[in-house]
Amino acid sequence: MPLELDASAPGFEKEFSAFLGRNRDTDENVDRIVADIVADVRKRGDAALVEYTKKFDRLDTDAKGLRVPDAERRALAARVPAEQRRALELAARRIEAFHRSLLPKDVEFTDTTGTRLGARYRPLDSVGVYVPGGTAAYPSSVLMNVVPAKVAGVKRIAMVVPTPDGVLNPLVMLAAEIAGADEIWRIGGAQAVAALAYGTETIGPVDKITGPGNAFVAAAKRRVFGQVGIDLIAGPSEILVVADRHNDPAWIAADLLSQAEHDASSQSVLIADDKEFARAVGRAVESELKVLPRAGIAGASWRDNGAIILVPDLGASAPIVDRIAAEHVELAMEPAAADALCREIRHAGAIFLGRHTPEAIGDYVAGTNHVLPTSRAARFSGGLGVADFLKRTSIVSCTPDALAELGPAALALAEAEGLGAHGRSIAIRLNRRS
Amino acid sequence: MPLELDASAPGFEKEFSAFLGRNRDTDENVDRIVADIVADVRKRGDAALVEYTKKFDRLDTDAKGLRVPDAERRALAARVPAEQRRALELAARRIEAFHRSLLPKDVEFTDTTGTRLGARYRPLDSVGVYVPGGTAAYPSSVLMNVVPAKVAGVKRIAMVVPTPDGVLNPLVMLAAEIAGADEIWRIGGAQAVAALAYGTETIGPVDKITGPGNAFVAAAKRRVFGQVGIDLIAGPSEILVVADRHNDPAWIAADLLSQAEHDASSQSVLIADDKEFARAVGRAVESELKVLPRAGIAGASWRDNGAIILVPDLGASAPIVDRIAAEHVELAMEPAAADALCREIRHAGAIFLGRHTPEAIGDYVAGTNHVLPTSRAARFSGGLGVADFLKRTSIVSCTPDALAELGPAALALAEAEGLGAHGRSIAIRLNRRS
Repeated sequence: MPLELDASAPGFEKEFSAFLGRNRDTDENVDRIVADIVADVRKRGDAALVEYTKKFDRLDTDAKGLRVPDAERRALAARVPAEQRRALELAARRIEAFHRSLLPKDVEFTDTTGTRLGARYRPLDSVGVYVPGGTAAYPSSVLMNVVPAKVAGVKRIAMVVPTPDGVLNPLVMLAAEIAGADEIWRIGGAQAVAALAYGTETIGPVDKITGPGNAFVAAAKRRVFGQVGIDLIAGPSEILVVADRHNDPAWIAADLLSQAEHDASSQSVLIADDKEFARAVGRAVESELKVLPRAGIAGASWRDNGAIILVPDLGASAPIVDRIAAEHVELAMEPAAADALCREIRHAGAIFLGRHTPEAIGDYVAGTNHVLPTSRAARFSGGLGVADFLKRTSIVSCTPDALAELGPAALALAEAEGLGAHGRSIAIRLNRRS
Repeated sequence: MPLELDASAPGFEKEFSAFLGRNRDTDENVDRIVADIVADVRKRGDAALVEYTKKFDRLDTDAKGLRVPDAERRALAARVPAEQRRALELAARRIEAFHRSLLPKDVEFTDTTGTRLGARYRPLDSVGVYVPGGTAAYPSSVLMNVVPAKVAGVKRIAMVVPTPDGVLNPLVMLAAEIAGADEIWRIGGAQAVAALAYGTETIGPVDKITGPGNAFVAAAKRRVFGQVGIDLIAGPSEILVVADRHNDPAWIAADLLSQAEHDASSQSVLIADDKEFARAVGRAVESELKVLPRAGIAGASWRDNGAIILVPDLGASAPIVDRIAAEHVELAMEPAAADALCREIRHAGAIFLGRHTPEAIGDYVAGTNHVLPTSRAARFSGGLGVADFLKRTSIVSCTPDALAELGPAALALAEAEGLGAHGRSIAIRLNRRS
């Protein structure tokens, strides 16, 4: 059974804090293994990459064979049924349109001193996108990483995907084609991250690496940060559903399970103001679990990490929602109530409003990004977006008059900080001593 | 003597690549020490923090004594001479105005399906700002971190500054007062980063940690990333000056030395199209070094890490500028030429245009931020800004009709990915089987 908490009961604060403090991240000691792999690929390049790929993915090829030829990609992509192709194309169009609306505008103005100031956004030259392979294939994640990079204007997008036993997924190939990935490499794990960060004889280095992966991939990304940029570190999925008693319990149960089915360490939480309704949802979860293909995973997640929190007033639940700071928050209530609560919430990766917006719509076709902050990172981070594929450059231009007006203050501060050459570079232009 | 390269000479590419590949980061093996300190502060809280502060900063106090009382801050700040106070106030006003111009706007629109989509920016609740202490005191860095956080709307800003032998710097206290830091703690090093990330009995945890520090601070920030957000990892300072022969060599020499004086591992590079001019700058650097207070540091930096690169045409130098991807780029030439070259440059933390815009103006009073990407990180990152203190939440709201239009595609993709509960959460609302 999932944890049950009552926000009105004595002891709630203590239990709720303990719940928030639970660590769901798999605590594998992968750091040393990853450090060795990264150093080895950095040093030996292709030779190391080929060895690790043979060892971990059972793919025996030379370095040239690591790249998926365009013809092979096209042939595989052509196998995808028309309905799935149309769905991917719709998703790509909508992701593109939404992300285009988020493009930042350059700023430039001249202030009263005559100083021209600006901030200008330019795309990264090249990006590496990590796509998990193996048992699960997520073409939607290809779109969520590659489309925003294209919208930002990135010229070179190198996608890596491990292919255990050499098997490539047609849907992933089609998604790469639709989104416009420039290169596809059949490599994965820490060795793929190292190859993208430092380059090898065959693979050119990139400027940033994005995309989800297992603990080895996450540790490798953390290790190469600085050499290249990285996006957020993805943890287990989460959903928090705030639902009133007028919902169909089966709908809410399906929503809770939609994240629980990702992984046993995923977390699904229901906030309700009606005990009977909450119990009905619990029962609906149990009956859904009888028919779900991934019932084993979803059931373990719900039992071990799930929670039902009863509150006296859903309209006043924002502080609890904020403390959970979930990846996905669903507000299953009438539109006006959902809007009002949404305005009060400060910490959430994405918010889904009303009874007809299941979280899964955001995973595929809403247009928003499904790469979102987990493990309470919504306190300080948003999801992946175009900004991740752009960087800002500041612009400053002083006229002689502007420097005459601003220079003395800068000189005073340089001297206060004991930085003589800083001061000299200003004083010499003002024809002053420093 | 600094390295001299000629872009027209055979072998340039090889020498230039080797120059770019030089690692100026101090390669101290601090990771294990930092891991122990962070784990200890996380586990033992105040007790560990007090012990480390006594050991490293020779400050013997209980946990309560770690906080600087408002009265003490005010008393110290009041000692700052009026000219420096006015300079700090001018800098703060200008930083505030420029950063206000960078505030992102919320996006919200309803598309043709009737789906409402949005992106909304909210400030972080709390931020920790690391301010280096000891030999160098940088009040300007206090402004550069705290003012953008205030502009973003952060409610709680906790500043930490190590105070070796208990000595607090009046200018740093005044800058904290002007910028509006809410708490000041006399702690530093990895122990301060750990205290901010996890909290202790006395210090509340924060959501993000920004600010420069030594190798221990950088390693600690990297380690707590995920628990809290962090800003970019600051490396040794850099300046790249692109200058034509009509500049006064002494002005350019002063600019090159303004970054060289930060640290022996700093890097100053001159790109020129005139050999005689470049030599004159080299001579001017030598004579400046005779009078600079920090000549030892600046001279070592110039000799060991500096470079002069001769190019046939400054107007075509953008590709070389981009490969260096420097923290600061100065374009010391006529306004029209500077503007034209500026448009071609893709990778730079900040660009300073014309003969009358020494980089140091950006360190203090231009209004732009002086926390900028180093070590070629300008390829993928901009400097500190208001965006670092905000996070984005996506908003999705479907009407029943919109879900009917978009749902089938989402369902097709969920089934293609083998995620049954994702599909169910949509199908159940469409009254379809999945």
